[in-house]
Amino acid sequence: MATTPQPKQPSPELIFDTLNAYQRTRALRAGIELDLFTAIGEGSATAADLARKLNVPERGGRILADYLVVIGLLNKQGSRYGLTPESAKFLDRRSPSYMGTAAKFLNSPELESHFSDLAAVVRKGGSVSPGTMEPGDPIWVEFAHSMVPMMAMPAEFIAGLVGAGSGTAWKVLDIAAGHGVFGITLALRNPNARIVGLDWANVLEVALENARKAGVADRYKTIPGSAFEVDLGSGYDLVLLTNFLHHFDVPTCEKLLRKVHAALKPGGRAVTLEFVPNEDRVSPPTPASFSLMMLGSTPAGDAYTFAELDGMFRNAGFKGSQAHSMPGPETVIVSAA
Amino acid sequence: MATTPQPKQPSPELIFDTLNAYQRTRALRAGIELDLFTAIGEGSATAADLARKLNVPERGGRILADYLVVIGLLNKQGSRYGLTPESAKFLDRRSPSYMGTAAKFLNSPELESHFSDLAAVVRKGGSVSPGTMEPGDPIWVEFAHSMVPMMAMPAEFIAGLVGAGSGTAWKVLDIAAGHGVFGITLALRNPNARIVGLDWANVLEVALENARKAGVADRYKTIPGSAFEVDLGSGYDLVLLTNFLHHFDVPTCEKLLRKVHAALKPGGRAVTLEFVPNEDRVSPPTPASFSLMMLGSTPAGDAYTFAELDGMFRNAGFKGSQAHSMPGPETVIVSAA
Repeated sequence: MATTPQPKQPSPELIFDTLNAYQRTRALRAGIELDLFTAIGEGSATAADLARKLNVPERGGRILADYLVVIGLLNKQGSRYGLTPESAKFLDRRSPSYMGTAAKFLNSPELESHFSDLAAVVRKGGSVSPGTMEPGDPIWVEFAHSMVPMMAMPAEFIAGLVGAGSGTAWKVLDIAAGHGVFGITLALRNPNARIVGLDWANVLEVALENARKAGVADRYKTIPGSAFEVDLGSGYDLVLLTNFLHHFDVPTCEKLLRKVHAALKPGGRAVTLEFVPNEDRVSPPTPASFSLMMLGSTPAGDAYTFAELDGMFRNAGFKGSQAHSMPGPETVIVSAA
Repeated sequence: MATTPQPKQPSPELIFDTLNAYQRTRALRAGIELDLFTAIGEGSATAADLARKLNVPERGGRILADYLVVIGLLNKQGSRYGLTPESAKFLDRRSPSYMGTAAKFLNSPELESHFSDLAAVVRKGGSVSPGTMEPGDPIWVEFAHSMVPMMAMPAEFIAGLVGAGSGTAWKVLDIAAGHGVFGITLALRNPNARIVGLDWANVLEVALENARKAGVADRYKTIPGSAFEVDLGSGYDLVLLTNFLHHFDVPTCEKLLRKVHAALKPGGRAVTLEFVPNEDRVSPPTPASFSLMMLGSTPAGDAYTFAELDGMFRNAGFKGSQAHSMPGPETVIVSAA
């Protein structure tokens, strides 16, 4: 007898999984803290091997490792766990791209606390506290220490994109320099580039230390303070705006961009790194999700679409902007002064 | 010129998304608390409509709604938000299957606190505190109040599976009755079924109230206390073990099952509702993930495979067990005494 196909019944599974999604964060953080990914990177391991290597009871190691397989951060073949290409590159401590430190910033109690009562945030239309926007907020020192590895790839991409290899004498302003990696990478790829890093004084200490370590401290100057208040200087070939505009509303961004425009040489360029969702604002998933990060942690920031960013730059006097996609969740936008 | 396809570069996106996954939980909870799903269920809405209906600033409503689209709990067509089949059935307060209350249990500060230092849990091999296993833990009252809607569908499935419609005179023991919904549904579908609910005394008050509301209180008796310690009675046709065995290790489960076996009539059946992962322990995602819930919140519980459960029942004297899959993340197992 032929059966009529039944429409799939709605299942509560996605809702149940989402109410428990906080455990994904906790599991990854535990894996990083226990250095489980490095242990597996040293050789595929059974639950018993893992327990021995990590010095934990087998029940703990086995359940955590299985969960990390479920959420796509490990593989399992038979009873042996292995790394995925992503966990091998970013979560094995022996990898030069290790980014386990990102958990220290992204899962800091301060940052997570902005989301503990998200209904209140939505009712207010922005962060309930001042968010992360207070002068000298120490969270940006944590950011500068923790987020270097996640930024290494975009920093290299930008250096290539703007033609750092040409060796042209450049004066570069790195606004909200943080760890300094964007400016430092330009200095490394272009021996004739001089960098000015701007950030809170406590954060600049991290950038200066990184510049020293990279051997470019003699070409690294700093301006401590708020980009909205200090004198930016002038005659820049490049101004870097990496992960900065998303913290502010459009009028505030435009005010800053006018100041940036004035600081650039004729023919100079602003280079922006941002989470840029499509015009539908709900794709691709990671940049689109980033709006919620800004809702919770800033009074008025957002993840802006390319049209919005292009509009801001034009209103600030720039001729136009071009978007460049790259591996990872962010986009580089180059705007001509 | 032919180009060689490049292997896809590993991207940090999954790791970044997982470190931020706690925001999925917060966003769904905010949507439930603001009754955003009901507002959209009353008619597809733009961000401006939503802001008016929920009396929140547009920035808050728009960013939350976009995020809920990204994580699959809303649809968006042009600028209008709509419910998915799942959110219409389970998150619109006007639906009889509304399960927004589940957040109160699953995201209670007590339950989430068991995961706040998951590395410590893994090192210990189980919950750092006594977890949720203390006698009379008030979290089970919250459970009993909050989880009814998620259990309505499995309760109806079980009633159909065991043949409640036959009207045979049944004596049913509901172990860890909680809200009482499993026994009460059997009583509703079989007017000749008498139910005995067993749970902590504070929890049984909820079950009794639900039995009164359902009009089956005259066929609902109770045994307060621990299933491991009290006299279960005897001559049962059915013993229900819903979401109970996962809290304990195998020897403890077998000890209880021997007691259950002794309480059943010859020819009686134990009916177990459980999260049952495949033998690989990493699929399907939701039941496999449930092991971590037990690692964090119990000293020695687990999500058991069918082979493990079948083994426990056989060791306790049962003839054998049969698994029945149903919509949703759980499986029903019927074991013959």
